[in-house]
Order: sequence, then structure tokens, then C-alpha cells
Amino acid sequence: MQLLQSYVDQIINTALEEDIHYVDVTTDYLLPDGHTSSAYYIAKDNGILCGIDIAKRVFEIVGGGVTPLAGASQCAGGAKVGGVTFSECLTDGSEVKKGDIIARMEGDTKTLLKGERTALNILQHMSGIATATNRCVELVQGTNAKITDTRKTLPGLRRLQKYAVTVGGGYNHRYNLSEGAMLKDNHIDVYGGITPAVTALRKKIGHMTKIEVEVRNLDELQEALDVGCEIIMLDNMSCEDMTKAVEITAGRAMLEASGNITSANIAQVAATGVDIISLGALTHSVICFDISMRFDK
Amino acid sequence: MQLLQSYVDQIINTALEEDIHYVDVTTDYLLPDGHTSSAYYIAKDNGILCGIDIAKRVFEIVGGGVTPLAGASQCAGGAKVGGVTFSECLTDGSEVKKGDIIARMEGDTKTLLKGERTALNILQHMSGIATATNRCVELVQGTNAKITDTRKTLPGLRRLQKYAVTVGGGYNHRYNLSEGAMLKDNHIDVYGGITPAVTALRKKIGHMTKIEVEVRNLDELQEALDVGCEIIMLDNMSCEDMTKAVEITAGRAMLEASGNITSANIAQVAATGVDIISLGALTHSVICFDISMRFDK
Amino acid sequence: MQLLQSYVDQIINTALEEDIHYVDVTTDYLLPDGHTSSAYYIAKDNGILCGIDIAKRVFEIVGGGVTPLAGASQCAGGAKVGGVTFSECLTDGSEVKKGDIIARMEGDTKTLLKGERTALNILQHMSGIATATNRCVELVQGTNAKITDTRKTLPGLRRLQKYAVTVGGGYNHRYNLSEGAMLKDNHIDVYGGITPAVTALRKKIGHMTKIEVEVRNLDELQEALDVGCEIIMLDNMSCEDMTKAVEITAGRAMLEASGNITSANIAQVAATGVDIISLGALTHSVICFDISMRFDK
Amino acid sequence: MQLLQSYVDQIINTALEEDIHYVDVTTDYLLPDGHTSSAYYIAKDNGILCGIDIAKRVFEIVGGGVTPLAGASQCAGGAKVGGVTFSECLTDGSEVKKGDIIARMEGDTKTLLKGERTALNILQHMSGIATATNRCVELVQGTNAKITDTRKTLPGLRRLQKYAVTVGGGYNHRYNLSEGAMLKDNHIDVYGGITPAVTALRKKIGHMTKIEVEVRNLDELQEALDVGCEIIMLDNMSCEDMTKAVEITAGRAMLEASGNITSANIAQVAATGVDIISLGALTHSVICFDISMRFDK
Amino acid sequence: MQLLQSYVDQIINTALEEDIHYVDVTTDYLLPDGHTSSAYYIAKDNGILCGIDIAKRVFEIVGGGVTPLAGASQCAGGAKVGGVTFSECLTDGSEVKKGDIIARMEGDTKTLLKGERTALNILQHMSGIATATNRCVELVQGTNAKITDTRKTLPGLRRLQKYAVTVGGGYNHRYNLSEGAMLKDNHIDVYGGITPAVTALRKKIGHMTKIEVEVRNLDELQEALDVGCEIIMLDNMSCEDMTKAVEITAGRAMLEASGNITSANIAQVAATGVDIISLGALTHSVICFDISMRFDK
Amino acid sequence: MQLLQSYVDQIINTALEEDIHYVDVTTDYLLPDGHTSSAYYIAKDNGILCGIDIAKRVFEIVGGGVTPLAGASQCAGGAKVGGVTFSECLTDGSEVKKGDIIARMEGDTKTLLKGERTALNILQHMSGIATATNRCVELVQGTNAKITDTRKTLPGLRRLQKYAVTVGGGYNHRYNLSEGAMLKDNHIDVYGGITPAVTALRKKIGHMTKIEVEVRNLDELQEALDVGCEIIMLDNMSCEDMTKAVEITAGRAMLEASGNITSANIAQVAATGVDIISLGALTHSVICFDISMRFDK
Repeated sequence: MQLLQSYVDQIINTALEEDIHYVDVTTDYLLPDGHTSSAYYIAKDNGILCGIDIAKRVFEIVGGGVTPLAGASQCAGGAKVGGVTFSECLTDGSEVKKGDIIARMEGDTKTLLKGERTALNILQHMSGIATATNRCVELVQGTNAKITDTRKTLPGLRRLQKYAVTVGGGYNHRYNLSEGAMLKDNHIDVYGGITPAVTALRKKIGHMTKIEVEVRNLDELQEALDVGCEIIMLDNMSCEDMTKAVEITAGRAMLEASGNITSANIAQVAATGVDIISLGALTHSVICFDISMRFDK
Repeated sequence: MQLLQSYVDQIINTALEEDIHYVDVTTDYLLPDGHTSSAYYIAKDNGILCGIDIAKRVFEIVGGGVTPLAGASQCAGGAKVGGVTFSECLTDGSEVKKGDIIARMEGDTKTLLKGERTALNILQHMSGIATATNRCVELVQGTNAKITDTRKTLPGLRRLQKYAVTVGGGYNHRYNLSEGAMLKDNHIDVYGGITPAVTALRKKIGHMTKIEVEVRNLDELQEALDVGCEIIMLDNMSCEDMTKAVEITAGRAMLEASGNITSANIAQVAATGVDIISLGALTHSVICFDISMRFDK
Repeated sequence: MQLLQSYVDQIINTALEEDIHYVDVTTDYLLPDGHTSSAYYIAKDNGILCGIDIAKRVFEIVGGGVTPLAGASQCAGGAKVGGVTFSECLTDGSEVKKGDIIARMEGDTKTLLKGERTALNILQHMSGIATATNRCVELVQGTNAKITDTRKTLPGLRRLQKYAVTVGGGYNHRYNLSEGAMLKDNHIDVYGGITPAVTALRKKIGHMTKIEVEVRNLDELQEALDVGCEIIMLDNMSCEDMTKAVEITAGRAMLEASGNITSANIAQVAATGVDIISLGALTHSVICFDISMRFDK
Repeated sequence: MQLLQSYVDQIINTALEEDIHYVDVTTDYLLPDGHTSSAYYIAKDNGILCGIDIAKRVFEIVGGGVTPLAGASQCAGGAKVGGVTFSECLTDGSEVKKGDIIARMEGDTKTLLKGERTALNILQHMSGIATATNRCVELVQGTNAKITDTRKTLPGLRRLQKYAVTVGGGYNHRYNLSEGAMLKDNHIDVYGGITPAVTALRKKIGHMTKIEVEVRNLDELQEALDVGCEIIMLDNMSCEDMTKAVEITAGRAMLEASGNITSANIAQVAATGVDIISLGALTHSVICFDISMRFDK
Repeated sequence: MQLLQSYVDQIINTALEEDIHYVDVTTDYLLPDGHTSSAYYIAKDNGILCGIDIAKRVFEIVGGGVTPLAGASQCAGGAKVGGVTFSECLTDGSEVKKGDIIARMEGDTKTLLKGERTALNILQHMSGIATATNRCVELVQGTNAKITDTRKTLPGLRRLQKYAVTVGGGYNHRYNLSEGAMLKDNHIDVYGGITPAVTALRKKIGHMTKIEVEVRNLDELQEALDVGCEIIMLDNMSCEDMTKAVEITAGRAMLEASGNITSANIAQVAATGVDIISLGALTHSVICFDISMRFDK
Repeated sequence: MQLLQSYVDQIINTALEEDIHYVDVTTDYLLPDGHTSSAYYIAKDNGILCGIDIAKRVFEIVGGGVTPLAGASQCAGGAKVGGVTFSECLTDGSEVKKGDIIARMEGDTKTLLKGERTALNILQHMSGIATATNRCVELVQGTNAKITDTRKTLPGLRRLQKYAVTVGGGYNHRYNLSEGAMLKDNHIDVYGGITPAVTALRKKIGHMTKIEVEVRNLDELQEALDVGCEIIMLDNMSCEDMTKAVEITAGRAMLEASGNITSANIAQVAATGVDIISLGALTHSVICFDISMRFDK
């Protein structure tokens, strides 16, 4: 798994603490020790799978197991996890069709029941992001544009969410305020213009940190280009203006389109020739991807 | 604030750790100490506000301030928080119209810029939940039905999300697996039927814990009623069956409709006479409520 | 184990941090690597065992082991834990007689010595609670009364303590202030009486949350019954009054006796016919159950 | 306060997390904002007060307040804490008589109700320890013996408990396994005797760490004295043997009596002339000290 | 303060937990409440001050105070912190001469004694880094070279250490493995050369992330330039080769010198014309800057 | 391992969180799953090894492995850790010569690359402390003097650092302010002299806690001896005065030399006959010990 295991485990433990907390009064009080079942995940929509290793890890932790996360395994012959054998049929990034079996699990019924909701909540959220991202990627196919996320993420979930964007075929914008610089009008106004502000920042910033400048019109774009900005965000510009911006820039900088971009207009935005299209909705308004966990009778 | 302050602060600190982490290389490197600005929140849609005290607390923490959260204040004369005076114009639960000023803040520009994204991310998510809940509440107006959430929440955010549901006029279903019992078919099958399963559970469970039973058809409903269940979930039933269920039950138990309920059919579901309608989408597929933070020039 | 493993591990790690902290200057400095011993737990009193899986887990963690907690095993053939084989002879809930061997362990002497105190501290506390609870359960045998705990627990230990109460044959009262409602006179006075207060609360509370009302005399009991309260706490009432309360109630609500109940009068209280007897002392004044760890020579 | 505030705050926040968690469904749903009350703590027994600053801090935290803990204040004119003015009438270590008013508080009713149980749970536990310790101290008055605690503490509470022992007039034994050395028979047997074991340990241990040796009979005592041990624990010895041990030792080492010491025999043990009497029960079997919080009408 | 306050507070609380833990047996047992003193920090060497706000915050926290960190204040009239008034005479980045008074503090003697070591440990470490960095900066004065840190930091202290480097006039290299890419031979070998490796990475990486390539000789440099690398690390090259590298590059990329650079040869390295000189020793081998805290008599 | 595993794991997880955080954009994006390599640690200087078990544990954790830390293994046949087989050739405390192979590792290339820096940072720091301590130990060979550390440690790293001192042949001074008492002039002045201060402290302190007194001249030494102090610190005394101090003391107390002791004068200080020489520089000014990780081609 690319994500740091200590982060993943902390997310899972927090979620289990929320969902089980003390004891599962239904399952712990009713199910006998040693009762076993088999179950499976089934897709109820078309999309991109994301988070399957984390779903597996949920059952491992609920079951008190400590077997390391194995890589993606075939449907037959998964790894034994916490009293539950979890066999992934599909891996992160797989295209999923409605009705596809995503994974099969077999083992301790208590573990299956107690982990069910926590695993699904994470899996559905991440797959929802990957799926939405992928739809945008497909809508801009054939253009130059890359789809990226933003800092509009939910508290504590930024790593999960940004990872899901990459699984869906998107790219990550700067991770946080220390990883990359972005000059907005508030920063620029203090210095009286893009040129002095960018110049001031370049004197302070490390050589591994990129600087992006937000511009609101073509005059500002010109100023940003003149001072040699490498990355320029076109904030809420019309497609007409963005087309002109691409012409003016002529490859001297990367151009990012941002603001009010939806699936309805994204193809048109991409057609302007911008390099980057960033969408807050990928992470701030996630529609969960529908997956069911069904028990075999 | 009703939510435990240590929980709220931990959410905020986690989010700031994600978003600022080391230093804000743009703001910390460019803005001079002592620079001040004023700004305001403006609604870009109609809905229900939720999380304004938490947004305020973000600036308090970013500013290193420790002033306790004051209660909602009028637009004129807010409390000084961390170098920023934050004046709420509207409080949690207020109906917001597009263009309404939600809060005004004034003070240290660095604090305003560094806290902006974190505060908005939380405020927009919570207001999104309150707004969606409230739309459901309005759609079932005039019926007996109460709108409730589910355990389909995002990791670490359950308290924020469930609180937002109540602010929107909804009610909370059980908080976790230890707070209430819910017998599903997996539990029931082990005992060979609803009657023995419920009987077994009653012998084990504390007197403050409610038991709900999930039924898939009217026969199971009858069995649940016969064994004296107080709360019965009608799982993915047709409106026709739910109407019959209400007749059969005749007030002897509370009935909860669950599964595949959307804004398109919720009024029809409510019209069957069920007592409770639970919707996972309120918390698992949140559309953030659009609010902008604008700086005065 | 019913308790969430992350909670149990955190309790153990906190206790080890307190007890070992840096190094065990006696054991780490004197005992050679590879030295092994065998030891056993012996009961020094009669009672109910509780916490044996947690004691086992202590040695697993001290030994740096990661083997998952196996279920209860026979005295011969336990699971290898952290360089120590720990074989449970008795499991949680077992009746223990003075002189009984509770578990045998064998392996790394350093692990045995460094984990000894932490494991015993937890095991003796939990067994003390289970034993005291069980004595109350036996004292009310033949009556209708169930024994429950309260919120009078020690900081950080509520889950351990409430679990031990159930192992001793008792039941759990509400876990916390959000899981169940309890109207006391302070709440009632604000509304001018039980009837308006209960009515106000019912409008706000979720359908899975029970409401209990505290009454101080038979008039208040009558009012609580009239407004349809399901659970009523008789606060510090005489047995005479409680007997009357049971008659008046006639099964329309559950009655809980609370306040000044000890082993001396609990049978008499139970004889009044109340449904629930709650005792703070089960968790706030625990006499530890005496168990020794002895090394074989 | 002598205890580290970050430790105290963490204990309180853990306890509030356990007791309030989400919202107080009774108080938060019923009490109007701005409702105020006054209340007081009243002793229901005689003993030694301990933990009053921590009780005060509970209300400060619940109220979202950040006012630093003021020192002990007179009954009139306390510090404003979290919407609650908390005035200590007695301070840690004070002798309390049944019926004494311990503190008065006035302010936000919600804060008072939500903090009530958490504050009392801690205050009663700590006062219980201080009271029990003080009774032992009084029972040995006139002898040479000092009363000390042991490592038999409850997980996470060692600092609270050891502090309470000192408030009751007792002394602290070693805090943990790294702060002091204690050679038991398991350590000694590996070296074939007290002399070689002590000699080996002295070569390894820092100059600030004391070494205590546990002896089971007078021969072992003689050996411990011969090798120059400064502190010797007489493990489960009869009073007769302890008297002889005191004579033999003649001031060359400190002698600690340990094992099976109760209020029934402690005076007799002290009369043997031992320097230290350690009692596990001070912290492992705490009877909480009864204090009520009463609201003024 | 630029550093996130929650991070700073966590560092301080961890350090206080290590240094005070339970109680300060000397100070808490001997000093009477209310005893006050005044003291000051005096430099015992020449260098650059760093961490003074954090030192101040230590006393604030020890004193249980909650006053927000005020900005740097004049020697006369500091802010009251936790019973201690702490007046900074110099701020982060100030040049300090041996004998300079750095700050004055006045107030509760217990707070001053209990916070002394923790505050000095942090202040001396950070000032040591700033001072060493500044010496390097001065040694390369007049050249093109910027001094940067590396990822060779101490566990948990990276933010403190990297901040101190900037205070000393240095720059930060990438913060972590996700903030910037650095291709080493292990990465390159998998792809059979710099060109395919860089090409592969560019397809995957976000637009805000810079790519640096490590080269070991001038051939590799040429390949890196040909594939358009912007930043190239010259790994352990001789000054002769670095001079050639600068000529070959001719401004097409930034060149970083790394490996075996000390104060003895840094001027010579800078004279080659490289843009960046990175030194692990700035953070992995810190000589603390000598500051004393003296009490006024 | 002597150090508590939960502490070690927390140090490692904190460091990995700092160094990897989200994903390793170079390694995770470029290296194919299943790619393996072999590598080794090679010493680049002479010294004492310390922290090798912790370095091993880093790879175990990065690899998501959970195999318990095995003891030191021969170069052939190490334990499989997290997809990496890590074979220690030398153990903590071993003398290392420049060019020695310290450990060999083989397995998943991603794990090797992602853990490399974190493992080396810790290993080099700890080995640096052990090496510097050992040099001091050798410089005082033939004298009575033991080398000890101080409380001048780095935040969060005290346990790692103090352990490394013992591995280098040094001893630990008191761990923290609660483990041992040290009277400085501030404490003494309040009581008007050493005699009353020591007398006051003895009445309060537990029997397992040692008391050390700091003296600044021979008169204070005499007073400390007269009141029976066991351990006396000679603060910044000349070697001449220390020689006299040893004569005066004549074995009645242990004498600790402290202040301004360097490798240049330590032999001379030891020759005075003092028992203890404490050096802050062992932990506050650590020069990391140079070790390289090299990949086999």
C-alpha cells in the first residue's frame, strides 16, 4: 500500500472507536463464539474501485489479527485476516461494473458483522472519489488537460481523498500550504502587484517549492508571464478568456483553470487548451459509490 | 456549544495539521507582522447554516488565541479571537439566503488567510448536511415521519455529521453499535427466527438500550409485533407494503422505512404513515453548501 | 474479546508506560537474555474471574509479540505470546475458588517479570468488580431485580469496568450522557414539572434513546406514570415506599431503585419488586480480587 | 498544582469523552442557553480532601473556559471558570467533617450538570485515597513508621493516586521500575544469592538510583546487611521476626514491612520499629469518599 | 509564530512530561506557594537566537497559563505568562553577542525552576542550528550559493529544525518524500537510465511537485540536462568537476552540491558556482548554543 | 530490547510521518511492485554501535510487517521483516571499525528506499552518543570516575539518548525531576542554608529517592557533609578545589564534577578522585556517527 500504514490504521481505529466503541450489543450478545459465515462485496453501479486494501485491513484489525496486508490476490486463495479470509477479486483502480464481485470473505461471523459498516463507509467514499475523478478524466480525453484536486478536503481525510483522486486517474495539487506557494490577491495587494510579490517570495522560498500565481484577467496574466511565473491559475475566467490566455501564454507557463467547473462544462474548459483543471467537488462533495456486502446463505 | 470542545478542537487541529503543517510558505513569507484586514462570509445558495461556532474557533486556534467561544453575537461587536474579531450574523440552524452575510471578521491578515480553508471546509460540509436534512424534513411535512441519519458516516466525523443532522431538523438514529441493538437477518438466522433471537437478546441487554428488528416482509413484521418489538425497520419495502405494515402495526410499534429513499420518493414513503425515515445519503454523500470568504478591499 | 482491541491495547500501553517507562533497572540490568521461567496465577479468594485475556495480552505486548489473542485455551497447550506461552485454565466469568490455578505461563523471564505487576493490577481490579457484582446478583436471586452499574466509574476505565459488571452477571446502565436520557429535578424544575419536561424532551430525542425519570416520592411517580414514562428511578426511597411504588406502577413502567443500597439491604430492596437496582459502589469502590503470580522453582 | 497540568487535563478530557461523548441528550436538549444555578459540594463523611483543584478544572474545561487554575480561594469570591464561578472553601489536605461545605459554584446550569459526575468521580476517588492513607498514618502515630504506597495502582491513574497518598500524609515508594531497583528472589536466584546479585547490580546502576532488597527470613536479612544494603523489605514476616529484624539491623539499613498489612494489624507492625510500611490497598482497593453536589433551590 | 501552535505545544508538553512527569520532588516539596524570583537569559557565545517564543511558551504552560503568545516585546514590559512575566529583549534571528541579555522573566519561582531545563534544551538546540547555518551563509557570501538543510533530522523535531535553518539565513530543501521528487540511482536503474526514469515520473507527478535528479558524473549531468531536468544534485563531486558542471549547465538548471561539505571546504564549493549547497550536519550534528538562565539575588 | 516497544514504535511512527507522510512520490510512483534489492550498512568511522534493533524495526514497520523483533542474528540468516530480511552483523555496544559491515538487508526495494533515511537518522544519532560516551569512558580509565548524562536532552528523545549513554559505557543520572532530588542554590536560599533545606526535604521525600546537593565552594561542601548528604555536586570547581574536596570528603559522600568538562580536561578532572563526571554535551551536542546504506548492484 502506498499510504503510510500508521495513518491508515489510525483512520480505521478512529472509525471503529466511533462505530463499536464499547461492545456491539447485538452481535457480541447474540452470536456464539466460533460461528462462521462467508460474504462478498458486490458493486451496485459502474465505476472505479478504491480502498480495497483498507477494507481488508478493517477486518484484520477487528479480528485482532496482525497478518500484514498482502498484495492483491486472486479471488481464490486470499490471505487469512483476523479470523477472516479476505480475497480481493479486484484491486484499486479497477473498472467495476454493476454486479461485479469485488471481494470474498469467509470466517468469523462476529468479525464480519462488526467490521461491515466501517469497511464499507471507507470503501464507498474512496471509490466515489475515484469514480467521479475518472468521469472527469474521460470527459477531457483528447485534450491537454489534467484533472487535479484542491485543498477542499474533509478534516482528517486528506490523504485518503488525495490518494483516491490519483487512483481515478487525476493528479494531486499541492498537499498543503507549506508544500507549494500560491499567490492570491491578498498576498499580491500587500506588495502592490504581481511582480514585486513574486520577486519577494522567490528570495525566501526553497528551491524545491513551486510558485503558482492566481490571476483574474489577461492583464494580470501578462504581468505574471513577464515576471516568469511557471504556473498560473486562471480564476473563474470565461472559456473565451481562457482560450486567449492559452494563446498569449504560448507554452511559457502552465495554466490552471479553476472555479465553477462541472461535468457540464469541463470538456469545453479543457478545449481551451489549459494544462490543469482543478475541481474542489472531487473531495468536498463526494457521492459514495454503491457497494453491498452480502452474506451467503 | 453542545459538542464536546475537546472533540471540536481535535478535529480543527487535525485539519490545520493537514493544511498548514509546517509553515504557510506564501503567507508566512510574504505578509508582514501586524498587517490587518477585514473579511466576511457570504452565502452563495439557500440553506441551513451549521458549524459557525466551529469556524470561529478555527481562527481562534490559528491565532494562538484562547478566548473562550462566546455565544452567538450580533454582527456589530463580536468577540476578539486570536487577533481576529469574529462576529456571527447568523447562528446554527438559521435559514440562509443566497447573498446573506453570515459572519464578519477583522484582524490579523495572516490568521485570516491561514485559517480560511480549514474553516470553510468544515462549515460548508456541516451546512451541506443541515441543508439536505432540512429539505427532507420539508418534503415530509404534514406526515408523521421523522427524518433520521444512519451509521453511514465518514471516519472521525460522526459527531460533526450527526450534530448537523439535528441542526437541519432531523433526528439521530443510534450513535453506535453499543448504544442500541438492531437485529438483522444474520443475527436472527443463528436463532432460527425473530422470536427466539429477540428473547435471547432481551435477557442480556441493559434496561436503557432499545432493540430494533429489521424485517423484510409482512410475515416477519407480524412475528416482530407478536414478540412485542417496539421498533421495526421495514427494509427496502415497497410503499404498498409499507402502507399495509402501518395498518397491521396499528401503533403497537414504531416503523422505520429504510433503503433506496431519495428526494424523489420520500414524500410518498412518508405518506405510508411510517414513523421514521432513515437516509444514509445525509452523511455519506454530502454536497457541500457554498459559502465564500471575501476580503474587503 | 468483546472489548475493542485498540482500547484494550491503549489501556495496557498506558499502564506499561507508567510502570516500566524507561527500563526495568532491576530486571533489564540483571537478567541474562534467554533466561526462561515458568509461573502461574493462583487465586487467593473465591470469586469470579475477569480480564484474563487482557492479562495475557500484557505479556504479549511486553514481549514485543504480535500473535493475535487466541480464544481461551486449555491448561495444556496455550498460545505462544511474546516469548511467553500463556495458557488460560479458566476464562472470564468462571467461578474461582481459593487455591485454583487460573493460568500458566512459561518463557522469557524478563517478560514475565516486567509484565507481572501491570497484568495483575488489571486482572485483580476487573475480577474484583465481577466478584462484587456477582455477590449482589446472588443476594437478589429469586426476585425480579437486575443489578446494574452507574456512571460512577474511574477516569479512562469505564469500558473495562462496565464489561466486568456484565461478566459478574450484572447489566449496564446507560453508557454515557448521550446514550440515554435521565431527567433529574434540575431538568424538571426548568419546565415546572415532569409532564412538560418529558413532553419537551420527547420532541427532541431520537427514537433509539430511552428516557428515564428520577422521582423522589409517590406523587412524582404518579405524574411520571401518567405521562407514560417507561423507566422511573426511585431516588433514595424507603423500602416501604418502593413497595407502594411497585403496586402503583403495576407493570406500566420499569422501576429502578437507587441510592444507599449495600449488601446489607439489597435483598430487602429487591424484595420490594423493583426491576433494577443500580449500585455506584460496583465501580467507584472496588476491592481488588486477590490473585498471586508465583514462579516455579 | 503540583501535578503536571497536561496530565490532569488529559485525565479530565478522557473522562469527559467517556461521560459526555457526543451531547448530553437530557441537558443539551432541555436546558435553555443562559440558564444559571448555584450549587455546592457537601461532605457526607469525615476524611481528608484531595483533588479539589481538579474538580474545579473539570468545570473550566466543560465550560470551554481557559482561565488558569487560580490557587485556593476563600468561599467568598472565587475565580470565574468556564461560565462557572468555583470557590474552594477547603483545599487539598484539609480535614473534612461530615456536613462541611467543600466548595461553592455558580453559573451556567448546563456546565454544572454536564461536569457534575466527572468532577465527583475524580474528587471522591482521590479523597478516598487520602482519607485511607491518613487513617493509617494516625494508626502508627508515635512510632518510627512511615506509610507508603506501592505500584499496585490502576491503569492511567498512578499519578493521581500517588499524589493523593502524599496528601493523606503518606510517602511515595518508587514510581516505576526504572526509578528504583528492587531485588526479588527471581533476580537473586539467577546470581545464586543476595551478595552476588547486589554486587552485579551496583556495577550497572546510576548513582541516583536506590537499591532495595526483598528478604524472606532473618538469614537473608543478615546477608543483605553484610553486603551493605540500605533498604530491605521484610516480605510477609511475622511481627516477632520483624522485631528481631529491627534489633539485628540496628539502624544500619531502612526496613520496610510489606504484605498482609491491614488497619487491624498496622499498629502492631509499626510497633516492631520498622521504618516503612507499604500498603497496596491504598491504591488498589479504594473506597470512594462520599461527597454530594447539591443545587440551591 | 510561524510554526503551528499545536505542534509547538505538543513538543513542549512531551518535553515537560519527560522532565517533570509526576512532581518536581525538590521544587514542589521545598518552595512555598507564592514565592517569586526574577531571572534572565544570558548568552555565553556569539550566534543567532532561535526559539525564544517557544521558551516563553514553556513557562506559560508550566505555569498553567493560557495567555496567548504575544509578539516580541521590549525588555521593559513583557506579557504576563503563567504567573511569570517573560520579556524578550531579542527576537528570533537576532545576532547575539556573548554576555547579551536575551530575555528577562519574573514571577513564580516554582514555575521558573520547573520550566528552566525544558526551555533551555529547546532554545539552545534551535539557536545552535541557526548559528551553524548562519556561519555557512557567511562563508559563502558573495557567491551564488544558497545553504539548505536535508532530511537528516531528528525524530519528531523536523519542523523545529527546519524553521531554525531559515532563521539562520538558510533555505529548506524538500520537507518530506511526498513534497518533492528526487531520483537516485536506485530509481534510475529500474528504468535503465535518467531519460526514461524522468519521463516516467513526469507522467505521474502533480504540477506543483518539483523533480530533482542525482548525478554522479558529468555524463549523467549531460543526460539530465538533455531531458530537461530543472534541478540536479551533484553527488560527492570534486570541486573541479562541479566547476565543469556549472559551465556545462550554463544556467539551464539549478545545481545542488551535496556530500562531504564542511566549514573547511564550503567556500571553495560555493566558488564553483553551484546554486545550492545542502548540509546534513546542520540538523544531524547540532552543537547547542550556550545560554544560561541566571536568577537575580 | 530494553526500551519499551510502544515508545520505540511511537518514535519510529512519528519519524515516518515526518519523512513519508502521504506517499513517496519518487519511489511509490516509479518502482514496480515486487521489485527486490539487497543492501547493507557500512561504518564510515570507528565507534560504538547503538540502535540497530530500532533500525531493523523501521523496515518492519515500513513494510507493514508485524514479525516480532528477533534478537541479534548472525549475518547469515536474519529474520524476515516487512518484506525485508534484516540480518544484524553487530549488536548494540559492539565496537565498530571504519569499513565494517553492520547489517545486511534484502527484500522489497520500496521498503528499503522508504525506510532508509528514517532508520539512518536514528541509528546515527544513537551511535553518535554511544561513541562519544565511550571516548569519555576511555579517557578516565584507571580512575574512580563514572561518566553520566544529564537532563540536557532533546524533546521526546530522552529515553533513546539515555539508553545510548549506557550502551557507550556511561551511567544515567536521574531520569527526571521526580526521580531524584537535586538542591540548587535557589532551593537552599529559601531555607537560609544547606542544613535546613536538606532537613526540610528529608521530611517530605520517599525512601527510594536520593538527594543530591549542589555546592559552589569547600565551605558549602563541609556543610553538606555535616548534614550527612550522600551525593554532592561540585559545580564548576577548579581541579585544585575538587582535589581538596575529595580529601575533605574522604569517602563520606559521592562527589560529582559538573560544568565545563570537555575531552580536553576530563582526564584531569577524573584524576582529582571524583566519583561521577556528568556531561551535558553527551546528549545536547551529538555528532552523528557516520554510517552508509549501500545497495548491491
